[in-house]
Amino acid sequence: MTPSSTLSLSGERFTAVYRLSGTAVEVEARAREICLEQTVEFPEALIPNEAIRAQIVGTIAEIEPSSSTGSSMGSSTHPGTDSISGASWSGNSNHDASDENPSSFEVSIRYPIEAAGRELTQLLNVLFGNVALQPGVRLQRIDLPPALLQHYTGPRFGIAGLRQQLGITDRPLLCTALKPMGLSPTELADMAYRLALGGIDLIKDDHGLSDQTFCPFDERISRCAEAVARANQQTGRTSLYLPNITAPADELNARAERARERGAGGLLLCPGLTGLDSLRRLAADDQIALPILSHPALLGGLSLGSGLGAGLGSSQGLAHGLLFGTLTRLTGADATIFPSFGGRFAFTAAECQEITTAARAPLAGLAPIWPVPAGGMRLEQVPELVTFYGRDSMLLIGGDLHASKDLSARCQAFLRLVRQASEQTSND
Amino acid sequence: MTPSSTLSLSGERFTAVYRLSGTAVEVEARAREICLEQTVEFPEALIPNEAIRAQIVGTIAEIEPSSSTGSSMGSSTHPGTDSISGASWSGNSNHDASDENPSSFEVSIRYPIEAAGRELTQLLNVLFGNVALQPGVRLQRIDLPPALLQHYTGPRFGIAGLRQQLGITDRPLLCTALKPMGLSPTELADMAYRLALGGIDLIKDDHGLSDQTFCPFDERISRCAEAVARANQQTGRTSLYLPNITAPADELNARAERARERGAGGLLLCPGLTGLDSLRRLAADDQIALPILSHPALLGGLSLGSGLGAGLGSSQGLAHGLLFGTLTRLTGADATIFPSFGGRFAFTAAECQEITTAARAPLAGLAPIWPVPAGGMRLEQVPELVTFYGRDSMLLIGGDLHASKDLSARCQAFLRLVRQASEQTSND
Repeated sequence: MTPSSTLSLSGERFTAVYRLSGTAVEVEARAREICLEQTVEFPEALIPNEAIRAQIVGTIAEIEPSSSTGSSMGSSTHPGTDSISGASWSGNSNHDASDENPSSFEVSIRYPIEAAGRELTQLLNVLFGNVALQPGVRLQRIDLPPALLQHYTGPRFGIAGLRQQLGITDRPLLCTALKPMGLSPTELADMAYRLALGGIDLIKDDHGLSDQTFCPFDERISRCAEAVARANQQTGRTSLYLPNITAPADELNARAERARERGAGGLLLCPGLTGLDSLRRLAADDQIALPILSHPALLGGLSLGSGLGAGLGSSQGLAHGLLFGTLTRLTGADATIFPSFGGRFAFTAAECQEITTAARAPLAGLAPIWPVPAGGMRLEQVPELVTFYGRDSMLLIGGDLHASKDLSARCQAFLRLVRQASEQTSND
Repeated sequence: MTPSSTLSLSGERFTAVYRLSGTAVEVEARAREICLEQTVEFPEALIPNEAIRAQIVGTIAEIEPSSSTGSSMGSSTHPGTDSISGASWSGNSNHDASDENPSSFEVSIRYPIEAAGRELTQLLNVLFGNVALQPGVRLQRIDLPPALLQHYTGPRFGIAGLRQQLGITDRPLLCTALKPMGLSPTELADMAYRLALGGIDLIKDDHGLSDQTFCPFDERISRCAEAVARANQQTGRTSLYLPNITAPADELNARAERARERGAGGLLLCPGLTGLDSLRRLAADDQIALPILSHPALLGGLSLGSGLGAGLGSSQGLAHGLLFGTLTRLTGADATIFPSFGGRFAFTAAECQEITTAARAPLAGLAPIWPVPAGGMRLEQVPELVTFYGRDSMLLIGGDLHASKDLSARCQAFLRLVRQASEQTSND
């Protein structure tokens, strides 16, 4: 319609690496469709001018056979550069199977940075908006240049910031949840007090505690923050109380502000329930400026295939490392909770490793953040967890701390186990 | 820890119907785990008092064999009652296969209304928060009593309201998108003008248009709204312009307000990108009060399994009817866009029917909303689409309108086809 467009973009692009299955010919055709689908969403032949075709439509940078296991990462990008890249998530560049009968490929597609602009919502849209509705496409990792990264403040504290706040330099952090739902603010505060006395570093609300009539938000945070402060005075140590501020869109930041005023030492947010951009907004708010734990509720639905086995489970959605690692970190969480292997959930050890690496590996100057394995962990697993996740991890144990009547004593046992295991472990 | 709790809930509960696979014994055990996981998230033996066990923990109301196809709905609930129920989505209560070797069951679990409280975020959390991280659980439908529904204003316009606004009583509505990305506001406005002249009822932004440097939001909506108004003056008809207001959390409602001020006739939002609660908030805002089209970008990731075939694809996530129908309607969209069978995406006809039924069937006094089949529809499909979706549907055709140089003429052809097909079709 407009032969001489005035479109004049920078030419700079960001990269999305998708995994597709099929023959080489099928995969290339599919990749071309994605280039259109995620940008112009328009039949190629009808694109109105050459400028749009050249400057807006995604371009295929690379197609290479990939192993068919869930978390294989390509070997063609370089870790530690000044851009977001998941290349360092995994060392295994085993493309051994590829020569025989390649059915799985990693396809790198490059999009103009102006298509995503300064908005996380639109970045997610270009990366995976429409293809999320199609089977057989999995977004493995992303690579964002500084021109895009400048719009993201990232984690305010991360591993180093939280260590400094707690004064703990040499071991994994201890985390637990105030629960079960149904306890009153007074009962939860009493529990928080005993947990802090027992030496738990981060005491968070269960993510099921919001603003229910039986446990109102304001009363809960006031009582729990006071209880933890009182315990800190007795112990001389620093335990933090982190209320769950997951809330309706028009109340979320106000709750965070009230939490801060009343003495919360951090915040718990479920970005799967609120939208990822609510996490970004919260983390960027200088008036709030508290460490943020991200909880994976509902978010898991976007990283399908957990536990369904390699070839099958990993054919759609967002890769575990990308979702719970890179994106959670990019949007500003200081710690990312995820269901560890060995608990009530079905993430594999490889998926957990992928998340952990994405949380901590060099990533364009963004602070490394805490991997927080959770979901039915038990004290007896502490040595294994510390060995697997290393010192720069936060162990979240909930129900199992309550297996003995003396809660504080059991917390002390938890701390002892972590210290012992930590002394025997070198960090990666 | 607290033998004499003061917990005293109403006893009223809402229902979630999950599909689980396995033997009857396995499924019952799994159902009990879900009752705990989605409420107390605590080992059953350690629940601190009887009040929590009796009043907070989910209860299994019913377990019945289900057909293993994707969208089977149970027959045990009653459509049209004063509560949200998806029972009327599908007439097929074929449990024929169940006696032979039942491997798929529908499990109804009832949760206390106070657990969800007045918050959509927490309702979603109780329904599916943690189990979204587990394989093999699919949320099929929900049933919310008036005590929960009172917190949701629902669609402001719905089918009847939008018909009234447009003055169209007897046919499907015509919708299209301004695209491709890369056109300037002036070029898009010119396109909008010609689409309105051609008789398109709803002219929406492509969901990839946000606030990019090459197409700034404010300039785009001003120009496009003016262009559509000018065309309306010429035709004497009402076409609406609906800008995409999907945006960062702290800008979204401000964009909606500016859109209204500058003459937008409705709004496009991608709740998968912003979070579903942003849709609820927007729809409930009396200062904005414009019809809202919901676009499925990224949201699709939560209804996995599209196109993967029955037994496999439907084993996780949220059922299509629940996500694109019930939840989208509950949170206030007036129309729900979804990828129709027969286009570039892989939803089946059965899944599309499930969405359509959930959008329009009686649902606790919430206005029926427009199903908007989309995703590569072509003019030649109009008769089939009208037959399948009925008169109370909105047909969204994008790229194919541009297959001829005379855009307005092609729009007129679209309108003619819809009118013809509509005359031959009775609505369901």
